[in-house]
This record gives sequence, structure tokens and C-alpha cells, in this order.
Amino acid sequence: MTENQITLHIIKTLKENKKKEFELILDELQPYDIAHIYENLPEKHQTRFLLFMNIDLIADLLEELNKDRQLEVLNKLGIEKTGKVLDLMDNDDLAVLLDDLSPEKIASLLSGMKKSESDIVQDIMKYPPETAGRLMTNRFVWIRDYYTVIEAVGKLKSFAEFAETINYLYVIDQDRKLVGVVSYRDLLIAEPDEPIRNVMYERVIAVTVTTDQEEVARLVEKYDFLAIPVVSDENVLMGIATVDDIIDVVIQEANEDIEKLSASGKSIDFETKAFVAAYRRLPWLILLLFIGIVSGSIISGYEDTLQKVVALAFFMPMISGMTGNTGTQSLAVVVRGLVSNDINKNVIFRLIMREFLVSLIIGIVCGVLISLIAFFWQGSAILGAVVGISLFLTLIIGTLAGTIIPIILYRLKIDPAVASGPLITTLNDIFSLVTYFGIATMFINHLM
Amino acid sequence: MTENQITLHIIKTLKENKKKEFELILDELQPYDIAHIYENLPEKHQTRFLLFMNIDLIADLLEELNKDRQLEVLNKLGIEKTGKVLDLMDNDDLAVLLDDLSPEKIASLLSGMKKSESDIVQDIMKYPPETAGRLMTNRFVWIRDYYTVIEAVGKLKSFAEFAETINYLYVIDQDRKLVGVVSYRDLLIAEPDEPIRNVMYERVIAVTVTTDQEEVARLVEKYDFLAIPVVSDENVLMGIATVDDIIDVVIQEANEDIEKLSASGKSIDFETKAFVAAYRRLPWLILLLFIGIVSGSIISGYEDTLQKVVALAFFMPMISGMTGNTGTQSLAVVVRGLVSNDINKNVIFRLIMREFLVSLIIGIVCGVLISLIAFFWQGSAILGAVVGISLFLTLIIGTLAGTIIPIILYRLKIDPAVASGPLITTLNDIFSLVTYFGIATMFINHLM
Repeated sequence: MTENQITLHIIKTLKENKKKEFELILDELQPYDIAHIYENLPEKHQTRFLLFMNIDLIADLLEELNKDRQLEVLNKLGIEKTGKVLDLMDNDDLAVLLDDLSPEKIASLLSGMKKSESDIVQDIMKYPPETAGRLMTNRFVWIRDYYTVIEAVGKLKSFAEFAETINYLYVIDQDRKLVGVVSYRDLLIAEPDEPIRNVMYERVIAVTVTTDQEEVARLVEKYDFLAIPVVSDENVLMGIATVDDIIDVVIQEANEDIEKLSASGKSIDFETKAFVAAYRRLPWLILLLFIGIVSGSIISGYEDTLQKVVALAFFMPMISGMTGNTGTQSLAVVVRGLVSNDINKNVIFRLIMREFLVSLIIGIVCGVLISLIAFFWQGSAILGAVVGISLFLTLIIGTLAGTIIPIILYRLKIDPAVASGPLITTLNDIFSLVTYFGIATMFINHLM
Repeated sequence: MTENQITLHIIKTLKENKKKEFELILDELQPYDIAHIYENLPEKHQTRFLLFMNIDLIADLLEELNKDRQLEVLNKLGIEKTGKVLDLMDNDDLAVLLDDLSPEKIASLLSGMKKSESDIVQDIMKYPPETAGRLMTNRFVWIRDYYTVIEAVGKLKSFAEFAETINYLYVIDQDRKLVGVVSYRDLLIAEPDEPIRNVMYERVIAVTVTTDQEEVARLVEKYDFLAIPVVSDENVLMGIATVDDIIDVVIQEANEDIEKLSASGKSIDFETKAFVAAYRRLPWLILLLFIGIVSGSIISGYEDTLQKVVALAFFMPMISGMTGNTGTQSLAVVVRGLVSNDINKNVIFRLIMREFLVSLIIGIVCGVLISLIAFFWQGSAILGAVVGISLFLTLIIGTLAGTIIPIILYRLKIDPAVASGPLITTLNDIFSLVTYFGIATMFINHLM
């Protein structure tokens, strides 16, 4: 059955008030699909759709909707049901939902919840955004270090429905400190009365609640984990971050890198309203406008030179375009490399030397090429030399700027992507114009 | 203990030939860490390091190394041990290792392997790169539809050590066709003698062997799966793709998008040699050089205009820079949006209308702003008007080019990121120069 057919079938059961049949259909669907169908359902059927669903399913549905839709659904549910649904939602997802709401709205939503659950959510919301504390869920199975294997399996079984992943069980001591991890596979092949202490793996890879989510993703990616435990500064087990959230982090961080590298404005997607998108894009464009004015005033400083040899203007876009591009090329390599490499002085030194060598090679190739083109086009060997030497130098400067600036920002704990896209464009524009017109002015008497 | 301390400890056990102690240390380490320690070990200790490890551990180690290192390790192992290790490696990882080797080398590596295992690898290698067929592993647990719950649990237990994920079991019929999936959690709460048919979930989300890896990642991401089954065209279950590989795909695809959008050259990372990096970056730069020449020849076509009003050159970098940037902004939104949206005519129409509205807003704001700046700077209202109108028009053209071109490429089944980064830069450069100098030439008599 296609999704359209399923939707029609569901509408039929809603109209004819056939709850049993409705439940049979939904039983075979993934929460993502249910959410998709709900979103495309005519308004008038949505209330009964929600009425027909049980609380668990509504909680699953909510986790797949965007924020506006979530609030819309909660409004339709009424206060009492809302509390029950929120109790069942993953705490990390609930924290995201509550994040930007007004204090009154948050209080009213939390008021219907169990105290234990609402306390947990409020705790999560205290952690800074984009940290492990915000990602973590409390839906995991912990065991005590004195358990036997059979006791651990027993606990896992009774919590299986509740746990987000059953591949690992985390072992804590009497102070709730994380002391080990045991995989369910290990339990299956161990002797039933073996103490967990002997089976568990003691060198646990964990993150603290304040670890940046990018670092969490890097660990999960390199160790191929399905989940990673999150501990407090005192090593008390607070929750786990699961791989499904990690994938979202990886996508989000990649999008952020792209947004920043292309200066495309924060969080614009297909749904963003035109005025909002324009508002988010304008800052970069206005910044670029002023950068353009700076470039312009540099050129105007060489007005005499330009007046005498108008042909210099022909090569301006090429030189600044290529300098900008080589800078962006290096920048992209560095920014993405910082995501997945262990950075130390040695690595940085080798990287800078490598990029310097790269810039020499591309500088020589492109410099010679443009000299020949300029010579044959404009019939002036001096002009060819001026353009070629300028390009050679600006490519080296541009490449090194694109390499060194993001590294400096990284060292200063500033996200290298945020400032360096526009920063490198500006600097390279200015470097390239000054170099080009500077060299041209030196040779001006030979050029005329 | 820090990694350095561990390394020193390991070297000590190697020197003193204490295998038991060596094994105790390695027992507590993750494969990723073992690989990292191995890579940093002095050459002279590496052979004994490998000698001390059992076959299983060497297979785990290999999966964490890059290709050159992998071949180096295999050389040290000798033919017989190599065969055993390759038998144990994940088939998808082994296929990657073999991918670019010479046919003789492949044959020699495969010769030491069990026939059943080498057949599977050779089958995987027949699928095109970047498809589900290449990603999948055969290390999963399948059950027959007539099994009871207790039989399924029994099978899972005996294969637990072998399976990559134990959260789901895939159900096949007598023709090995995929007919259902059951989660281990469902098994734990079901009655032991219930037939699997009654417990399983029949609407299985699966991909075929030729599905693009980006699509596989999209499904796993949206459904929050830990693994997704891969079937043949006849729905025969061939393998599963697991979330740890999916994370790698997501990172790889994001890097590819960034490489393409920033024209930064394919697969350059911190380890790439300078000559290789230069060679990979040069094509874009040389392309840009010729694009620059095209722009230059357009400007040279307006030499008279420029000669008469040199001040026009001052605004050139600003206009082409901003047009290029607004194009890249739209491009980034569209390229990333295509990754995560369901695309249909309706969505595309709304997107184009949205971007048109965005371009009107930013065109008016930036156009008015630059008019005023140009007027106060150069003292000419006409020049202000020429620059302002040009910028208004080029921002609209640039935005729409950045929106429509990637969509057309997507419709033509060409990866929108691949062609459109440089393509849009070129087109926008040409559009903006022609517009700017065209308008300036129309007003040339008033400008002087």
C-alpha cells in the first residue's frame, strides 16, 4: 500500500468511527510515517486521529514532529493527557520542545507531569545548548557492580521495553559512579552466576555533561558505539547519548559548517518564511557590501595607475576570484579536518608546510599560465609578468590565510568556520588588490 | 593511564616477552585505541605486537587502519594468517580494502580465505560504489517465519557474538525473502511459544542492493534505526547496513557537499601529500582562471565606458562578490535541502517563489544602501543610481540562478553540488558584469 492509500484508509476508519481497524493500521507503521500521515491529514480529522491513539503512540508521534506541530498537538490533547504524554517523551526531545518557550508556558506544560519526570527535564535544560547534557536520555539500563550475570539479564528483561538501546548495560557502584560497561552479548556467553565485576569492561569511554556535542559525535563515530554514557564531573552516571541523536548532531554540525563556509545565514531550510530568510541572509550580504566598498577604496587609491592602463581592470576579477577560492579550498580542508583529527603542534606544523608547498605548486602553474595568456591577449610581456607575479604571490598569501586563520581561531576556542568564511574573503580581497596594484604601480612606466 | 603510559607499558611487555600481561592490557582497550597505539609504535616492535595478538583482535585492528597500513600489516602476517584474518573481517570493510588493488593482489589475498567468505566479498565488490550493496554486512541474525519466540531467542544467543547488532532479527520465508522484522525487545516480552509470524512487524523498511548510500542514510536517520535490511530486486535478504557505517556515510556525504560547494578538490585531508593535493585542487583553479579570462574579456568589451568613468571599476568587486555570494547562499540551502526533503513540484514551486521574494527584499535593501554610499562617496547621483539598480538586478538574477540551476541538475539526475558551485560562480560573474556595464553604458553620457 502506498502512503496515500494508507491515509485514505485511515480517514475511512475515522469517519466510520472504527477504532479497532484504525489501531491495526497504525500498528504496522513507523512513528515517522504516522507523523507524516498526521501532518497531511485534513484539519477536521486530526482531533479524532489523536483521540484514537494511545498515550504511548502520541508520545512517539510527537517526537517526529517539528516544534510548531508539537504545540498544536498538545493544545488539542488538553492538559491532563498532555502531562501523561510528556511523561513518556524522551527527556532530551522534551527539553528541545520546551527550550524557547515562555516561562509561563513551560510551567503550564510541566505542571501536568509526574514530579520525577519534570525534575529530570528541568535538570537537562540547565545544561548549555549543544552539550552532551542536552543530548542524553535517562532511558537506559544500569546495574550494580555486585550483580551476577543472571541478575543483570533479569533487570535488562524487565526494562527492555523502556531502554533505548539494549546492547550495553552500564555498571555503577554504591555512589552511582560509572565503573564499567558490559555488552549484552558478553552477558549471553558468560556463566549465569559469574559476578558482573569479572565480566565487565573497566576502561569505559564516557563523556561529561558539558562535553560539546561535536566531540560526543566524534567519539561515537570513531569507536562505532551505539551509545555513550554521560557522567557528571564526579563520574556519576547521568544518562546516555544514543547513536540516533548522534546522527542528527553530525548532520546539524555539517549543515552549520556549510552555512558558515558559504555565509548562507543560520538555519534556513525549505520551510523558512521569505522575510525570515532575507533577514538572516542580510547581515552577511551587508557585511560583504562594506567589504566591497573597502576593496573599491583600495582600487580608487590606484586610480592613476588604472586610468593609465585600463587593461589592468580586465584581470582584477580573475585575481581576486582565484585568491578567494584557494583560500576557501584550504579553509574547507582545515575546518573539516579539525572535526575528525587529533590536533597537536606537530600536525599543525605539517599541515601549514603542506599547504605552503601546495600554494607554491599552484602559484607557479597558474602564474605561468596567466602570464602567457595575458601576453598573447594584450601583447605586452610586462603586463604578462605583472599579472603572473601578482597571481603567484596572491595564491600563496590566499592559501596560507585560508590555512592559518582557522587554526588561530581554533586555538582561541572560536569556531573556525564562523568567522573565517567572510573574514578570509575580505582579507584575501584586500591582499590580492594591494599586491596586484602595488606590483602594477611599480612597473607602471614600463606598462604604458 | 594515558595513551602514552599504555604504549610504554606495552613496549615493556613486548621487550620482556610477557604475552599474558600484554593480553591483559589489550583486553581493556577499544580496537580504535589499539590501532592508534600500533600506528605510533616504533617499527621494530610492530612485528611482535602482531605476533602477540590473536586472529580476532588483528581483524578488529585492521578495520580501524587506513588502506596502506592494512596492507603493511597483512604483509607482516604472512599468507596463512592473512587468510584467517580476512575471513574474520567485516565483508564491507574487506571490500573497501580490496577495491583499488591489482587483480593479482586481490587473487593472492583471497586465495588464503575460506571459499564461502571470499565468494561473499567478491559478490559485494560487484555492486557499484556508494550503494547499499557495498555497505552491507552479512553479520546479522535471520530467523525463519515458522520459528517460535523461544527458538528465535536460542538462535540469537548462539549467534550473538557474531552479529553486529542484536536489536533486530530479520524474518525470511522459504525463498530467503524478507517477510518481517522483530525486535529483541519484542521477543523478551512475548510468550515463549508464540510463533514469530504473530509477533513480527510485517511492513519492513528495506533498501535494495543498488540503493544509493545517501538514500540509505536518509532512511536510517529519519526512522532512527540501528540497522536497515538490504534486499535484492526479488526481495531476497542479502545483508544489513548498520548505523556505524551510516554515520561514516553521513560524514562522507557532507564532506563531499562541502568539497563541491567550495570547489576544494576531492578527498583532501590532513594526510594528503602536497603534490596530490595540488593536483586535485588545480582543475578548479584553472577552470576559475579561464572563467576569470571570460569576465576579463567582458570588461574589455566595455573598455571605452571604463576608460571614460574609471570610478566604475571601484564597484566591480562589490557587485560580483555579492552576486556570487547570494548565489552560493541559495545554492547551499537548496543542496542541503535536497538531502533531507521529499521533493515534488509543489515544494519546488514554493521554494522558487520564496527565493524570488527573498531576492526582492535583499535587492531593495542592498540596492538603496549602495546607491547612497556611491552618491556620497563619488558625489554623483547618476553613478549612485547605476550602481544601485545594477546591484538590485544582479542580486535577483544571482539568487534565482543559485536556486534554479541546482534544481534543474537534480531533475536531470546530476548531483546538484558537483556542477553548480563553479557553474553558478561563472554565470553570476558574467551576469553581474554584463548587467553592470550594460546599465553604465546606457547612462554613460550622464555619468561623464
